[in-house]
Amino acid sequence: MSKLIFDISLSLDGYVAGPHPSNEEPLGGGGELLHEWAFNTSYFRAAHGMEGGEDNVDSRLVEEVRGRVGAEVMGRKMYSGGSGSWDDDDNPRGWWGDNPPFHYPVFVLTHHARDPLPMEGGTTFVFVSDGIESAAKQARAAAGDRDVAVSGGAEVIQQYLRAGLVDEMHLHVVPVFLGSGRRLFDGHVADAPAGLERTRVVESPSGVVHLSYRAAR
Amino acid sequence: MSKLIFDISLSLDGYVAGPHPSNEEPLGGGGELLHEWAFNTSYFRAAHGMEGGEDNVDSRLVEEVRGRVGAEVMGRKMYSGGSGSWDDDDNPRGWWGDNPPFHYPVFVLTHHARDPLPMEGGTTFVFVSDGIESAAKQARAAAGDRDVAVSGGAEVIQQYLRAGLVDEMHLHVVPVFLGSGRRLFDGHVADAPAGLERTRVVESPSGVVHLSYRAAR
Repeated sequence: MSKLIFDISLSLDGYVAGPHPSNEEPLGGGGELLHEWAFNTSYFRAAHGMEGGEDNVDSRLVEEVRGRVGAEVMGRKMYSGGSGSWDDDDNPRGWWGDNPPFHYPVFVLTHHARDPLPMEGGTTFVFVSDGIESAAKQARAAAGDRDVAVSGGAEVIQQYLRAGLVDEMHLHVVPVFLGSGRRLFDGHVADAPAGLERTRVVESPSGVVHLSYRAAR
Repeated sequence: MSKLIFDISLSLDGYVAGPHPSNEEPLGGGGELLHEWAFNTSYFRAAHGMEGGEDNVDSRLVEEVRGRVGAEVMGRKMYSGGSGSWDDDDNPRGWWGDNPPFHYPVFVLTHHARDPLPMEGGTTFVFVSDGIESAAKQARAAAGDRDVAVSGGAEVIQQYLRAGLVDEMHLHVVPVFLGSGRRLFDGHVADAPAGLERTRVVESPSGVVHLSYRAAR
């Protein structure tokens, strides 16, 4: 059965991006520290056309979570780049290059209807202007028996949590404090209709702790 | 070697107390959910003069962390009760009853100098009006080769983190969202001079994850 999941790296103080994001530093100050562990995995490097990396517990965990994904939902800012603006048409083809690393349909939440945009390598950006439930439904249909990942940003994940549409979440807790920026669990996530059940804890040599939860409905 | 530690229960969204604390609900809305796992342990119950409880991984972990403590530092609000006020003298003898559950010296941070207050059962409240470093130094002297615990509230823990005085922290992450209230990691904890090193991860049957970190100086 296809699930709606998200997996995301966050600091010990709960931030998924640091302060003052810019085109040069889309994850804000210190934000790149959250992703070093993933960049060092062989799974991530292979998925992005690079060689090397470590085939460790981190790599196998990312592969297990991400390898089941058949479609993705993302917010407009994540599509066009951290500080890009849709209306100024700076980035009509998005931030992800000609051959984005997804290789499956990606549903972009936007207020502006627009034709789908096929890219190299199997990624197609599909623009959804009628809400998060519609995006989830379309993504599920596209994913078939694979999972749907909500990739971000934080506000989009919070919307899905509040609506009770998240089946599983995988948190990668990195041992740093960012102090400010964008918190993952903000925006009234406590209004989510379902409880949380912890399903897995993985301690990795990188210092990261991987915490998995599912909705207890 | 004596260490300065803290151990605290927090929600998955990072709160150590829920919204709207009151005399009836000193931990705020939902705050008691953070402590059910501890109340159910045989170690906690014995320490508070009660029988029963479970002798499980949670109990052994609390015993290992708390059993090394020989003195404690707390803020004035935690001494006098969540919403109590020092100046109105509602609670000159504190919130903890005639026989507080500490049974060792407790150093209370306050702006008002006052004589020490010995209680039944070995607890003495010592009032410290010259700052957190002085309280830590006095508590270390009282603890001998045992550890010093900073028990809270959150603002007091944040002050010790910012000052780089915390050697170890033990976080008990409870699988609930509180949505608002008092966050543990707020108040510029990222200014702490030391990095963080993860030392232990314990997955308990209660659904709680116990995460331990030490200062990497």
